[in-house]
Amino acid sequence: MIITSTANDKIKNIVKLSTSSRARREQNAFVAEGVKMFMEAPSLRIKEVYISESLHNKVNIAARYDDNDEESQLLKKCALKLKETGYTDVTDQVFNKMSDTITPQGILTVIEEDRHKLSDLLAGRDRDSLRVLILESIQDPGNLGTMIRTAEAAGYDIVLANEGTVDMYNPKVIRATMGSIYRVPVVYAPDLKLEISRLKAKGVTILAAHLGGRRSYKEITPGPRHAVMIGNEGSGLTDETAALADECVKIPMKGKVESLNAAVAAALLMFYGQ
Amino acid sequence: MIITSTANDKIKNIVKLSTSSRARREQNAFVAEGVKMFMEAPSLRIKEVYISESLHNKVNIAARYDDNDEESQLLKKCALKLKETGYTDVTDQVFNKMSDTITPQGILTVIEEDRHKLSDLLAGRDRDSLRVLILESIQDPGNLGTMIRTAEAAGYDIVLANEGTVDMYNPKVIRATMGSIYRVPVVYAPDLKLEISRLKAKGVTILAAHLGGRRSYKEITPGPRHAVMIGNEGSGLTDETAALADECVKIPMKGKVESLNAAVAAALLMFYGQ
Repeated sequence: MIITSTANDKIKNIVKLSTSSRARREQNAFVAEGVKMFMEAPSLRIKEVYISESLHNKVNIAARYDDNDEESQLLKKCALKLKETGYTDVTDQVFNKMSDTITPQGILTVIEEDRHKLSDLLAGRDRDSLRVLILESIQDPGNLGTMIRTAEAAGYDIVLANEGTVDMYNPKVIRATMGSIYRVPVVYAPDLKLEISRLKAKGVTILAAHLGGRRSYKEITPGPRHAVMIGNEGSGLTDETAALADECVKIPMKGKVESLNAAVAAALLMFYGQ
Repeated sequence: MIITSTANDKIKNIVKLSTSSRARREQNAFVAEGVKMFMEAPSLRIKEVYISESLHNKVNIAARYDDNDEESQLLKKCALKLKETGYTDVTDQVFNKMSDTITPQGILTVIEEDRHKLSDLLAGRDRDSLRVLILESIQDPGNLGTMIRTAEAAGYDIVLANEGTVDMYNPKVIRATMGSIYRVPVVYAPDLKLEISRLKAKGVTILAAHLGGRRSYKEITPGPRHAVMIGNEGSGLTDETAALADECVKIPMKGKVESLNAAVAAALLMFYGQ
């Protein structure tokens, strides 16, 4: 059976999951596109897989022959995982409608969400190092995705965001994480202040990136338990949130630049302490 | 006179300039949206200004009254600059068609391009410090714009890109530069190898960001004349280009991250030497 119509209810639901964070929460599921995202998705959390005719043909051919170039190897692994997870075939035309990208790869995975509570993540982590990235009202999905990816690369354990931050399961966020979405726990806090006080109670020092910071980030050596706090792209951290920091630090800038891109600022602070 | 139809030739041409790098080169002009970009544009290079009815009303009201909040002040300055440059009125509906953004601010400026040659920029700069960001085949406009913005903030003098890099005057690039596009000279080189040898002849040390780098970027102290080289988002630097570097450096990463976002990698390398 192959789905040939975009009027199919399953297809309509994929579009819904891609565009509505509310639908994602209601169904406890999100959509991830591409071969890499399918291969890296934890099998136990995969709910559905959709594959285009073209890609399915390529996978079948790769599985049948002994070619050993990189692409063939990947497609062979893909064939094995498809057997394990099951899948639904769709025509290329239908796939293009489901896809959020301009040049779709031909595979789309519906995955169970993995939403966390900070208190759970902190349980038992009283002694060892603990690094947290705190975000307030980040709006650009590409920025959020890049920050999650950079957080993993810099060895950060948790991303904590207020509810005004764009949804982590927005397809553009997922794409920008390049797979880190599966590995870095992201917490959305209805009350960021409360969660920050929870971190402080656990001995975590809070550093805020702030244009009005007195010292440069390079004058600080963050301890093994610290958090870096980054605010909205246009307006930075609110005064209320900045006031919760143990210290506000600035990133010295030359030229007439008023501020840095939020993901760049986050990267500089997170990598500095490495 | 107010333009009320999107069939107007001027309006059609704006759409062309926004979407075609070829049209931009032919007309030696590009389009920048928003109040900030209008205010920061060098007056001598402004060719045309289009303003929506709504914004024009707001500007007129601000100019007439004595309100001194931040927005009123900006709109007053805007009124003065509009007198100096001249402008064309368009209806809000027409403006929305011209605009590349979801929530247009209502002002769009056509500006003379400012394309540079590396040899001109290097003339007379034989002794003092010289910092260059070299880019190979950057595809994402947001990444390029962010890199130009970060280059200015880090005190870099020149951005040198191969012709496979997305056009600097793409509207999405311009927006992401947040005004740095007016201040950082960007050179597009038909032959990147030639330009790199020109830099080396001027005593500029070339550092390449490369996953296969032997040393970490933190083990290097770049001298006052150096260049940082960053490759394509998916595939990094070509072997041919990487071979031109004096040294390939890596950015050590934790977790299962395979690479960093290109703009993040550029930022870490450019800010490290500060």
